[in-house]
Amino acid sequence: MGDALQPNEISRLFEKVRANRPLVHHITNYVTVNDCANITLSVGASPVMAHSSHEVAEMVAQAGALVLNIGTLDTRQVERMLLAGKKANEAGVPIVLDPVGAGATKYRTKTSLKLLKELDIAVLKGNGGEIASLAGAGGQVRGVDSAGIEGKPEQIVSGYAGKLGIVVAMTGPVDFVSDGKRTLRIDNGHPLMGRFSGSGCMAASVVGAFAAVSKDRTNATAAALAAFAVAGEKAAVRYTTPYGVRQAIFDELYNLSPAELSDRAKVRKV
Amino acid sequence: MGDALQPNEISRLFEKVRANRPLVHHITNYVTVNDCANITLSVGASPVMAHSSHEVAEMVAQAGALVLNIGTLDTRQVERMLLAGKKANEAGVPIVLDPVGAGATKYRTKTSLKLLKELDIAVLKGNGGEIASLAGAGGQVRGVDSAGIEGKPEQIVSGYAGKLGIVVAMTGPVDFVSDGKRTLRIDNGHPLMGRFSGSGCMAASVVGAFAAVSKDRTNATAAALAAFAVAGEKAAVRYTTPYGVRQAIFDELYNLSPAELSDRAKVRKV
Amino acid sequence: MGDALQPNEISRLFEKVRANRPLVHHITNYVTVNDCANITLSVGASPVMAHSSHEVAEMVAQAGALVLNIGTLDTRQVERMLLAGKKANEAGVPIVLDPVGAGATKYRTKTSLKLLKELDIAVLKGNGGEIASLAGAGGQVRGVDSAGIEGKPEQIVSGYAGKLGIVVAMTGPVDFVSDGKRTLRIDNGHPLMGRFSGSGCMAASVVGAFAAVSKDRTNATAAALAAFAVAGEKAAVRYTTPYGVRQAIFDELYNLSPAELSDRAKVRKV
Repeated sequence: MGDALQPNEISRLFEKVRANRPLVHHITNYVTVNDCANITLSVGASPVMAHSSHEVAEMVAQAGALVLNIGTLDTRQVERMLLAGKKANEAGVPIVLDPVGAGATKYRTKTSLKLLKELDIAVLKGNGGEIASLAGAGGQVRGVDSAGIEGKPEQIVSGYAGKLGIVVAMTGPVDFVSDGKRTLRIDNGHPLMGRFSGSGCMAASVVGAFAAVSKDRTNATAAALAAFAVAGEKAAVRYTTPYGVRQAIFDELYNLSPAELSDRAKVRKV
Repeated sequence: MGDALQPNEISRLFEKVRANRPLVHHITNYVTVNDCANITLSVGASPVMAHSSHEVAEMVAQAGALVLNIGTLDTRQVERMLLAGKKANEAGVPIVLDPVGAGATKYRTKTSLKLLKELDIAVLKGNGGEIASLAGAGGQVRGVDSAGIEGKPEQIVSGYAGKLGIVVAMTGPVDFVSDGKRTLRIDNGHPLMGRFSGSGCMAASVVGAFAAVSKDRTNATAAALAAFAVAGEKAAVRYTTPYGVRQAIFDELYNLSPAELSDRAKVRKV
Repeated sequence: MGDALQPNEISRLFEKVRANRPLVHHITNYVTVNDCANITLSVGASPVMAHSSHEVAEMVAQAGALVLNIGTLDTRQVERMLLAGKKANEAGVPIVLDPVGAGATKYRTKTSLKLLKELDIAVLKGNGGEIASLAGAGGQVRGVDSAGIEGKPEQIVSGYAGKLGIVVAMTGPVDFVSDGKRTLRIDNGHPLMGRFSGSGCMAASVVGAFAAVSKDRTNATAAALAAFAVAGEKAAVRYTTPYGVRQAIFDELYNLSPAELSDRAKVRKV
């Protein structure tokens, strides 16, 4: 009981994001970067994108969280992620890693593992195929989409989180979040959220905003994923098409109150 | 008669895109890349953007088509296009080239010609000015917009396709597609489609999705351009402004059925 | 009296943008680049993004204005800004500089000052914190957002414009534009314009379009900021949320007539 995420804790975290307005520093892909900026604003935080080796250290030291997203990675970008990440670690700024497309190419898998090894990542958040690929649990990834996993998602997430000693989140029809000891599932969201570009990237930005305001990364991650998923549910009431839901999700998150979030969030212990 | 594109063939190709959900690998510009990702999803295919020399070969080998768009080209990007393109050729993955701004600067013209020479391009798709510039037929390009051509579009397209031995498509108020022997015209679309950023780029993504499912590139290209243009027509019924049409076109394409496409498509032999 | 910006001059400038359809060459960040392209179209101009050293000189020579935006700067991009900027100066093409995040990191401040020193910038446009940081007037910047200034904005703008000998614009709840001798304030706009990503970047694109059609950069900048702000006001009548306003602002600007702009513009001399 005490280990579940209580509704009042979810609303408290959301209130804290809005009160603190944390700066979320992104080094991310060029496909969905505008969506990441806008969703960060929608949740009540402040986005900044900066990648030059001349400034990442200075910028990340001011940030509440660093989001690393490998969606369009290359050698130089990975070098800068390492540079920014090391500084974030020194400054105690939590890092969220979104291993976009890990499992689809060896380079993406290897880079994700390298970032996990060389940096102290706070939260690893990916889709089923990505997380299972990294965990060596039979993940299938096609381009940047999950194409299936072998085994039970909660076990993969919990096992991999335990092995890494960090929080791991696997998003999908149901989201799972675990630190290896405690695993939460979030039964919010809507299938249309998987039919437009960028929902996974946006979820990582929201996780960054919540991770900035709480040391309990499991709770922060679960609350963040619930907030984003509830915004998606509400968007899907107004629109029945992918791009419609995409357009609406920003303002649904902006309009969502902490009280409504705690009412609608379906977060429970596995 | 037998050389025209029959309505049932248009709907069959569209059904095949949705059934196969081909992966469309893009190396593209950073202005409209999000639009390319979303329109690829809307048509029923799956987008991926990847440019690192460490992964392009592996990614493109999994793809159904490769879209090369030079909208914000530079030396490194062109090198990677050549790398990905050569691998695509080896793997039999069709390449769609969008020579954005060819004719506006010597660098864009030269790069387009180099890609056409060094790679086995399946479909070259550009606006009037771009295609006519490359064909040496008096094309005028201003920035990335066509500013006029000399002569008849169908003759330029047909002549240049014959010379190159590939499929050439010229988009505009009327779209023309030719392999040098057979030329089709598509009388769909709406003027507002030319008043927002990215419609040409999106069209290339849709062509990629169709090219992935048919060896007959002329038919595939014409069906793709018809699908995108019909979505634009439907969007323009709901909105009378450029950005409104842009917002609506994604879901109009998502909602378009193969049967409605074949009803509305105005594709005929020149 | 004669020094104020008369309503008929505002409408005349807007008409001229639409009649001339100037090409606005951007070297800009990858977060809001699509917004910059679309707002440039909305105001009636034509956008192009090009950064390769092989073509910037040729492209900018065809342009009506060059917009330099350092939102996601790095060493190579700054080199290209200098290259394009020098060619723009030679060709008499006005340059608009948007010093995004100046004051947040030393690199952004230093780069902005370097561009101001090495290039003949026509208009420097930033938010309060950015302009005050560059002017050495106690600006605070957090990420890319203004976090306050010391002193009166009109005095900072006027003083800095006088020192630099160029036009300086500071955007915010009230916009100020000055050439050091003459200072205008624009009382248009809506608070929601500051709650989505990209409004500052879009404003710079619109300034570029107006700067392309008038040698009086103070008037051109004030008219441009008024046009963008009036579009925002109209969008905020239809939408009460940030992303809604963002979506609507493109078409509100597209639909805005020169006559309505001159009616609604609240531009007066300080």
